[in-house]
Amino acid sequence: MSHTYTVARLAEIVGGEVRGDGSIAITNVADLREASATDASWLSSPQFRKHMDTTTAGVVLIPTSMDVAAPCAIVCENIQRSIAKLLAAFSPQLIGLKPGVHPSAVVDATASLGEGVCVGPHVTIDAGTTVGDRTELQAGVCVGENVAIGADCCLQQNVVIRHGCRLGDRVTILPNSVIGGDGFGFFYDEGAHQRIPHVGGVIIEDDVEIGACSCIDRAKFGHTVIGAGTKIDNLVQLAHNVRVGRSCVIVAQTGIAGSVRIGDGCVFAGRSGASDNITIGDGAQIAATSVPWADVPAGAKMAGTPAQDSTQEHRMQIHMRRLPALAAKLKKLIARVDKVEASADNQQ
Amino acid sequence: MSHTYTVARLAEIVGGEVRGDGSIAITNVADLREASATDASWLSSPQFRKHMDTTTAGVVLIPTSMDVAAPCAIVCENIQRSIAKLLAAFSPQLIGLKPGVHPSAVVDATASLGEGVCVGPHVTIDAGTTVGDRTELQAGVCVGENVAIGADCCLQQNVVIRHGCRLGDRVTILPNSVIGGDGFGFFYDEGAHQRIPHVGGVIIEDDVEIGACSCIDRAKFGHTVIGAGTKIDNLVQLAHNVRVGRSCVIVAQTGIAGSVRIGDGCVFAGRSGASDNITIGDGAQIAATSVPWADVPAGAKMAGTPAQDSTQEHRMQIHMRRLPALAAKLKKLIARVDKVEASADNQQ
Amino acid sequence: MSHTYTVARLAEIVGGEVRGDGSIAITNVADLREASATDASWLSSPQFRKHMDTTTAGVVLIPTSMDVAAPCAIVCENIQRSIAKLLAAFSPQLIGLKPGVHPSAVVDATASLGEGVCVGPHVTIDAGTTVGDRTELQAGVCVGENVAIGADCCLQQNVVIRHGCRLGDRVTILPNSVIGGDGFGFFYDEGAHQRIPHVGGVIIEDDVEIGACSCIDRAKFGHTVIGAGTKIDNLVQLAHNVRVGRSCVIVAQTGIAGSVRIGDGCVFAGRSGASDNITIGDGAQIAATSVPWADVPAGAKMAGTPAQDSTQEHRMQIHMRRLPALAAKLKKLIARVDKVEASADNQQ
Repeated sequence: MSHTYTVARLAEIVGGEVRGDGSIAITNVADLREASATDASWLSSPQFRKHMDTTTAGVVLIPTSMDVAAPCAIVCENIQRSIAKLLAAFSPQLIGLKPGVHPSAVVDATASLGEGVCVGPHVTIDAGTTVGDRTELQAGVCVGENVAIGADCCLQQNVVIRHGCRLGDRVTILPNSVIGGDGFGFFYDEGAHQRIPHVGGVIIEDDVEIGACSCIDRAKFGHTVIGAGTKIDNLVQLAHNVRVGRSCVIVAQTGIAGSVRIGDGCVFAGRSGASDNITIGDGAQIAATSVPWADVPAGAKMAGTPAQDSTQEHRMQIHMRRLPALAAKLKKLIARVDKVEASADNQQ
Repeated sequence: MSHTYTVARLAEIVGGEVRGDGSIAITNVADLREASATDASWLSSPQFRKHMDTTTAGVVLIPTSMDVAAPCAIVCENIQRSIAKLLAAFSPQLIGLKPGVHPSAVVDATASLGEGVCVGPHVTIDAGTTVGDRTELQAGVCVGENVAIGADCCLQQNVVIRHGCRLGDRVTILPNSVIGGDGFGFFYDEGAHQRIPHVGGVIIEDDVEIGACSCIDRAKFGHTVIGAGTKIDNLVQLAHNVRVGRSCVIVAQTGIAGSVRIGDGCVFAGRSGASDNITIGDGAQIAATSVPWADVPAGAKMAGTPAQDSTQEHRMQIHMRRLPALAAKLKKLIARVDKVEASADNQQ
Repeated sequence: MSHTYTVARLAEIVGGEVRGDGSIAITNVADLREASATDASWLSSPQFRKHMDTTTAGVVLIPTSMDVAAPCAIVCENIQRSIAKLLAAFSPQLIGLKPGVHPSAVVDATASLGEGVCVGPHVTIDAGTTVGDRTELQAGVCVGENVAIGADCCLQQNVVIRHGCRLGDRVTILPNSVIGGDGFGFFYDEGAHQRIPHVGGVIIEDDVEIGACSCIDRAKFGHTVIGAGTKIDNLVQLAHNVRVGRSCVIVAQTGIAGSVRIGDGCVFAGRSGASDNITIGDGAQIAATSVPWADVPAGAKMAGTPAQDSTQEHRMQIHMRRLPALAAKLKKLIARVDKVEASADNQQ
């Protein structure tokens, strides 16, 4: 993990312009408040501007859009992109898996591996499965029969891909997730829950990332589909026949019930969800811990359970917190009306 | 996955009667709206009747109870059972594990395996464990010491069964679930949380199915018990000493706290739960995301957190959404009473 | 699992004083209500005192603070500590892993193992990793590059520790948990979500316990930190850059969003959480299913989502349940005011 760069070299790496002494040596990255003279840091949002006065960072990445003074800065046109490049420059240097099949792996003779595929220790690849070029299967990964995995994928330790699932290119799956487990479907017959066979599969399109300990169930028939570029966090449950669009973001502990259709560019915040068979329009945003029970129009921002328009939900939440006061007011008003009526009765 | 059946043959398989051309070739199953001339589909509920006019399915399974016209149909007495058989007929054809122990598996010399047991790659079976006839332990499964597993079970990839747990016959556990992890019990002593030893086990009765990435903790003493025929989904947490009755359904992300007793035939919908030490009566239904904090009587339908009768909860939810309007009404009414009082004062 | 002790021997083990016949043979532990003449049981709280009249336990552990009659008792100064010792005395007798590296394990030549380390079947230890004395890595554990694990740790089956993470001494991790997975961080650029490299790590201090199927993400930079003595349950999500203090308790299915700072001695009850970037003061308690959206002061007891003071939340919950009645009252009052106004109009 030991890296050293001059500020001038870092400016080249992150695509920015030095304002200050380009010869300063930088060995790590840190938060503005915690950075020392050998750390690079950054100012990504005006709300952190106040920390610029006190930071002791060796160099600070600053967006062109903000006019900030700093003893040593790198001015960046696209600050997020530059931060990503900065972090990448300080990534730990790892040996990683070597191309080839580790001798402890068990790869069926009918499986087909592309060029440069890395198969780690104790991996299992079953019959009829194909793995694209340069894809990496880390220790303990289990891939079932007739699975198709694209190129440049990374399946991390102990990931399980069940039979017949299809992964595109550049799919990353973090450890211990399960793709293609049987959907949860039963019918009650002869005094017992009987399993409905789930003969469908899972299709994961290009550039999808899936976190750790997440579950994506296979379809009853047809496919559960995760659209290209969608990013899924840890401990997420996607039930059978769910269809997620492209470039969605699904945060940790979210649960999507069966056959939900999610458009493109949707956001499910932490521990949100959707009840079964509903449709979520393109670009809809579901707030943390919120669960819609009915279709959500495109672009809607929803909150609460059952979810409603998030402005309404927030207004409702404020009124809920005033409920004890409201009840007291009503009680008082009833007493006043009692009195008014009594007085009116007296007058009559 | 390539299957071809004539409609007549499918009728035999699903146990129905052909109404139309029995010679039509069917190669797959699909939804009524998406089915082509070589797909079989079905009409399982009157709400989908409208799709019958436009479907292009080669054949449709129809319940005897519904009088529907279709160019080619198979009329079925028990439609759910027939659909299950139809799906089974189109299950992917897999090679699966062969009976015997894969050479990479590590099976203790004192473990005892029944006839036809399949032990996959990289499986570990510890001392004193018994595995019943025809049970399948897929790649990466870890079974601890003195575990008893019945016949015809299927433990899927990377499942972990800790020491001393007992599984009945026909138990299926999906990948990466953990049975018999230590319950979460500590006491505070000498300035630190001290572990309470959990010396109990887990008993999983016949015909139970457990989803992926679910956790069933061992008991502090005695047993955590899952009753026969109960079906559990993914990412479910069942804490120490929970006792679940027979034929329950526990949907994904549900969490049951310690020592809860659940009757027979209960349903916990998605991400529901129960707080510790309570009793849930036979046949009770807990709505999605709802958590009872107190005993639930048999047959009750509960919703909300803390859960109440679901009709009351729904009425409360409606009133909550009207709260801003109610507060406005009250404000207006206060103004009116102010005026009435002022006018009364003037009159006096 | 067969143990037999006399009551006198058990009194020595649990550190108590016999009151009754010390020669009685005890073979197991059980609940007061279920114990037989050969079982030991205990009375840990006055609320269970009623069971003392009917229990048939062979011996009952009783705290010195409670004056209870029992045919045979062991009186204990620290009842919780004695119960823990009692349970430990009845722990199943396991063979466990032997010190040394199982021949099926894959340990990089540059990894360094302390004395008495136990490496189970199908374990993978990558380059540059160190493992402290007597630490146990059970079957299927995967440890990445440059990980530092302390002494007397227990990593249970299929646990994954990603590169660069650091564990102190006496850390226990239950099966299938993932430490050091990439944090969920992306930025939107060129029409797609782009990964932010996560170059930080995870530090788990001494005496931490982590449940099964839990995920602790690595930091974007710097470290995600779990303080000494903290206990974490199953299916918990701790996001990137979270810092948890010492001696906290985090119950199952809890989710803590990115960069949250949690003080010492905090309790997060089941399925609770915290939204990103907030600070939770020392000793704060978050009720089950509750999620604070803003900083929580030290010692606060919070409930609800967004969480508020738990007394306020409970009062609000009571008022919510009265909402339909309140709405009816208001309606009635409006009618009365209508009448009062009409009557006043008539009088004018």
